[in-house]
Amino acid sequence: MIEIERKYLVTSDAYRGKAISKERIIQGFLNTHPERTVRVRIKGDKAYLTIKGKSNESGTSRYEWEQEMAITDAEKLLEICEEGRIDKIRYSVPFDNQIFEVDEFLGANDGLVIAEVELNNETEYFDKPDWLGKEVTGDIKYYNSQLGKQPFKTWK
Amino acid sequence: MIEIERKYLVTSDAYRGKAISKERIIQGFLNTHPERTVRVRIKGDKAYLTIKGKSNESGTSRYEWEQEMAITDAEKLLEICEEGRIDKIRYSVPFDNQIFEVDEFLGANDGLVIAEVELNNETEYFDKPDWLGKEVTGDIKYYNSQLGKQPFKTWK
Repeated sequence: MIEIERKYLVTSDAYRGKAISKERIIQGFLNTHPERTVRVRIKGDKAYLTIKGKSNESGTSRYEWEQEMAITDAEKLLEICEEGRIDKIRYSVPFDNQIFEVDEFLGANDGLVIAEVELNNETEYFDKPDWLGKEVTGDIKYYNSQLGKQPFKTWK
Repeated sequence: MIEIERKYLVTSDAYRGKAISKERIIQGFLNTHPERTVRVRIKGDKAYLTIKGKSNESGTSRYEWEQEMAITDAEKLLEICEEGRIDKIRYSVPFDNQIFEVDEFLGANDGLVIAEVELNNETEYFDKPDWLGKEVTGDIKYYNSQLGKQPFKTWK
């Protein structure tokens, strides 16, 4: 399927009080090439393998293939992933007709908080909660695949 | 699981008359790093995603995870793979208590024929058919992931 999403920085922690769920995510990458990433993710008590293609020019849309897998397999695959595991807490935050997924990064990316919203098409209008900051859609340095190699704490 | 196998060149086409099956294989790689490869394969009317880890020192043993997938998904994933698709015909050839898989490569690897045998352990003894030539187990240039980038026809 084609995944369409927009990504924003977050300006306050007001989203926490509105969250309907909170889950720990640990993930690694078998491949971090911008034209094809292969991700192993453990999210709560489930695990997934996700392959993403290259983004369109605006960075909003990307081919994505995902398959659930056994957690024990995911743990083995995480061992052979590239260096730079991503560890984060994801809050699911409903606002208006959308669900915003807000990721609080841990470890080497501690301090970074990113919100994503999935859309039905690239021009879909949606109301923005007041804790939503600057848009960073398509900025490669905010890709999780890049945050493993160049973590937030190393940025100037 | 851990896959243990040995790989050989082939000295004649005598295996063809002994084959119990013959299937076309088309495959591409989302990642060809020797420590972690991600392969998309269409084999006959089925498709698979296969992840392999790093080999042990002798090249006989390697962690492998495989998942069957829809052919339509595999076709889409082949489009985002690295350049250098592998196209080959695989013969399954029983000999003594083993099945040898003999791959006749096509396209840019035309002329190359490789036989593989899967073993239960690294020191397992097996009888060799007389069409089996030099062992190439662990020689990275014979990895399918490398044959896409440095095809047989370009070798000196």
